[in-house]
Amino acid sequence: MQNDILMRGRAVLARDLNADNPSTALLVERLAALEPGDAAAALLVLPRRRAVAVLDRPEFETAPDVLTALPRQEAAAFLADMSADRATDVLGLLDGPLRNELLARIEPRARATLKQLLAYPTDTAGGIMTTEFVALPEATTVAAALAHLRTVEQSRETIYAIYVVDSDQRLTAAITLRRLISADPSAAIITLSAGRPPVVVHSDTDRETVASAIRRHDLLAVPVVDAAGHVLGIVTVDDVLDAIIAETTEDVQKFGGLEAFHAPYLQIGFLSMIQKRAGWLCALFLSEMLTASAMQHFEAELERAIVLTLFIPLIMSSGGNSGSQATSLLIRALALGQVRLRDWWRVVFRELPAGLTLGIILGTIGMARIGIWQGLGLYDYGPYWMLIAATVGAGLVGIVTFGSMAGAMLPFILQRLGFDPASASAPFVATLVDVTGLIIYFSVATVILSGTLL
Amino acid sequence: MQNDILMRGRAVLARDLNADNPSTALLVERLAALEPGDAAAALLVLPRRRAVAVLDRPEFETAPDVLTALPRQEAAAFLADMSADRATDVLGLLDGPLRNELLARIEPRARATLKQLLAYPTDTAGGIMTTEFVALPEATTVAAALAHLRTVEQSRETIYAIYVVDSDQRLTAAITLRRLISADPSAAIITLSAGRPPVVVHSDTDRETVASAIRRHDLLAVPVVDAAGHVLGIVTVDDVLDAIIAETTEDVQKFGGLEAFHAPYLQIGFLSMIQKRAGWLCALFLSEMLTASAMQHFEAELERAIVLTLFIPLIMSSGGNSGSQATSLLIRALALGQVRLRDWWRVVFRELPAGLTLGIILGTIGMARIGIWQGLGLYDYGPYWMLIAATVGAGLVGIVTFGSMAGAMLPFILQRLGFDPASASAPFVATLVDVTGLIIYFSVATVILSGTLL
Repeated sequence: MQNDILMRGRAVLARDLNADNPSTALLVERLAALEPGDAAAALLVLPRRRAVAVLDRPEFETAPDVLTALPRQEAAAFLADMSADRATDVLGLLDGPLRNELLARIEPRARATLKQLLAYPTDTAGGIMTTEFVALPEATTVAAALAHLRTVEQSRETIYAIYVVDSDQRLTAAITLRRLISADPSAAIITLSAGRPPVVVHSDTDRETVASAIRRHDLLAVPVVDAAGHVLGIVTVDDVLDAIIAETTEDVQKFGGLEAFHAPYLQIGFLSMIQKRAGWLCALFLSEMLTASAMQHFEAELERAIVLTLFIPLIMSSGGNSGSQATSLLIRALALGQVRLRDWWRVVFRELPAGLTLGIILGTIGMARIGIWQGLGLYDYGPYWMLIAATVGAGLVGIVTFGSMAGAMLPFILQRLGFDPASASAPFVATLVDVTGLIIYFSVATVILSGTLL
Repeated sequence: MQNDILMRGRAVLARDLNADNPSTALLVERLAALEPGDAAAALLVLPRRRAVAVLDRPEFETAPDVLTALPRQEAAAFLADMSADRATDVLGLLDGPLRNELLARIEPRARATLKQLLAYPTDTAGGIMTTEFVALPEATTVAAALAHLRTVEQSRETIYAIYVVDSDQRLTAAITLRRLISADPSAAIITLSAGRPPVVVHSDTDRETVASAIRRHDLLAVPVVDAAGHVLGIVTVDDVLDAIIAETTEDVQKFGGLEAFHAPYLQIGFLSMIQKRAGWLCALFLSEMLTASAMQHFEAELERAIVLTLFIPLIMSSGGNSGSQATSLLIRALALGQVRLRDWWRVVFRELPAGLTLGIILGTIGMARIGIWQGLGLYDYGPYWMLIAATVGAGLVGIVTFGSMAGAMLPFILQRLGFDPASASAPFVATLVDVTGLIIYFSVATVILSGTLL
């Protein structure tokens, strides 16, 4: 290693990290704020254990840039020392050629593990699991198990769960450390088993399902097994916490009508930001063009009763708003498993009366608005103002009912088609409801105003 | 206790719970699906430890109804045996008189703890903490600490973190069980401290901040201390997981434009559902009425150039969509601490060019649409069709830019005013942008079309 990078690292340490005995969280924060080159130099000068601890934190979001800035051999050595799940995540963010170069410098066994983990999609149990766990044969005594835990304490992601395997290395039980320390030291660990099959997930299990398994069974970690029951790795509760937060961010961004970003807001490049926002925005814009076509279709009515146009924005937005409410309710209900695909008809039976009631409430307010303006002389809606009020009122009932139903059914339809129900966005629902809303409004107008204004 | 309730319980057990050695998660699922009276009877017949484990699970959402259905003395006994944080949550959902009656039947010390916990708001550290933790004096040896853990293993929420207190009962260090089991048995536990002050939160710390402290420092539990440094309780990682999921549901529902529900979708009463949805829907409707006023203001222009109305829905929805994108981005960025209140000007410098670029993209598509329809003879926008295209294009640039800026700033303004930035909803942004959008559109039209159509 060159001397100048070490000197640079010492300078950085003296300048930016001169805290007395800093916590890992503080180191992460300070190093993430530095230029990748400076941070890389500082990592080389820090005590090894602390440098690895910093790189191991998912919050150290500049890790890929920092590893890129390090001499290749040093970067590979760090990756080998990091926890396998985190090393996989970081490798996944590097450019292909650099990733292969670094993998080639890692010793064969660790390399094989990383390559295997890299093959799993990031939103599955395989993609977030780690291979550093404690597995022991059934006949191990409690005392021997505790002795083993003491020796591996530093190198395992969690030692709070011990996995018991049979002679074919298949999982037979999961024992918690709290049961272990209060057990008879001479007992075989298999005797501590609760006597029912351990909770497991598979490598292709969705990370949201992993999270709900951990919650449902109050676990600190859940084992990931293959079809034969061999343990491939474990997912710990803190990995799940990170996964849930990432999932939430994705869901909120999708609901807001854009493709999910995987970087902090201020670090997103301008072009990639435009790209991810423009895609959906253009798609919605093109669909929304149907409103212009619908309006063109009703142009004759518009010219005869221009007063109808005054309420178009009001009526359309009410449909969009009621749809967006229903969608957000159902997205969460589906995500939390409170409602299943087959419950769609129950939802219809709830949303239909709810939409009607909400429509009647808004319709009454809308008619009152026209009546009051007319009565107080604030605006003259012409001789047929009562018919116009009736049109607006009936239009609102129809559009709010349709909006609630469409908004509630959209997540079901998406799930049925194999998409994430959380892809249903507020702008998507609004666009869906806008075009139909216009048609409902003008149809109601034709019926009510025919022979008078139209 | 009457015999008939026990007989009923045995019948329920035989009918619905005849699984062989069921897991707690399975018991929770089965019992939650039963009538509260049946579930109550079954709990009395189950082994005490298992019944308490079921009641302890936050997923057992019918717990308040089940306790209401139990004889008072039995309900009070269960509450006393449940973990203090869960008992508090359940008590908080009971009617006031019943809550007081049950509290009166609990022995004074436990009652004092529950009353103290009930006083904290549910979205703070105090509201989700438990008082069952392990605290030991500094001079305790490792061997004595382990012996103590063995005796309290059953009654403490987690024994994976041990809190070390000085002679005044103030927190001086937090030791993990994994360090303890690998330490020299004769050492004093205080010697295992990392030598820096432990991570703590306060009883009024927001639950999202608690979650980020646990994530940032990779903890299994974080202690809640008072101003003098005494430990009041702990918040465990699984409480945080539950809290984050509750928070996410609230945030998604708020973003969808409704008040947060605290019950599963299919269990929400019809009236309470209408109430929570109608409130926001009416507020948005009343604000959106300003669009009718704005349209009335521009009535003269509308009558002269009815062709302008054709594009009103298209233009308004584009403003709302770009605003909703920006809001969802900034809500998450603020929630994750990627952006702070004082960074608002940086966001302005990103959103202004982003909004302009997106506006130019949509404006170009919009002008092309008019040109193509006119060119192919699909619709006749009249002799001034190029000026109309220019109006639509310029209007889109203005409205999308304004929408992005307004959507991005809204979460900051809410946070500055002391509200949750996540209260900024897509419908709220859309309404905000709709009125302004109409004014921008008609102002642009007046400038461009003055002397020709207007």
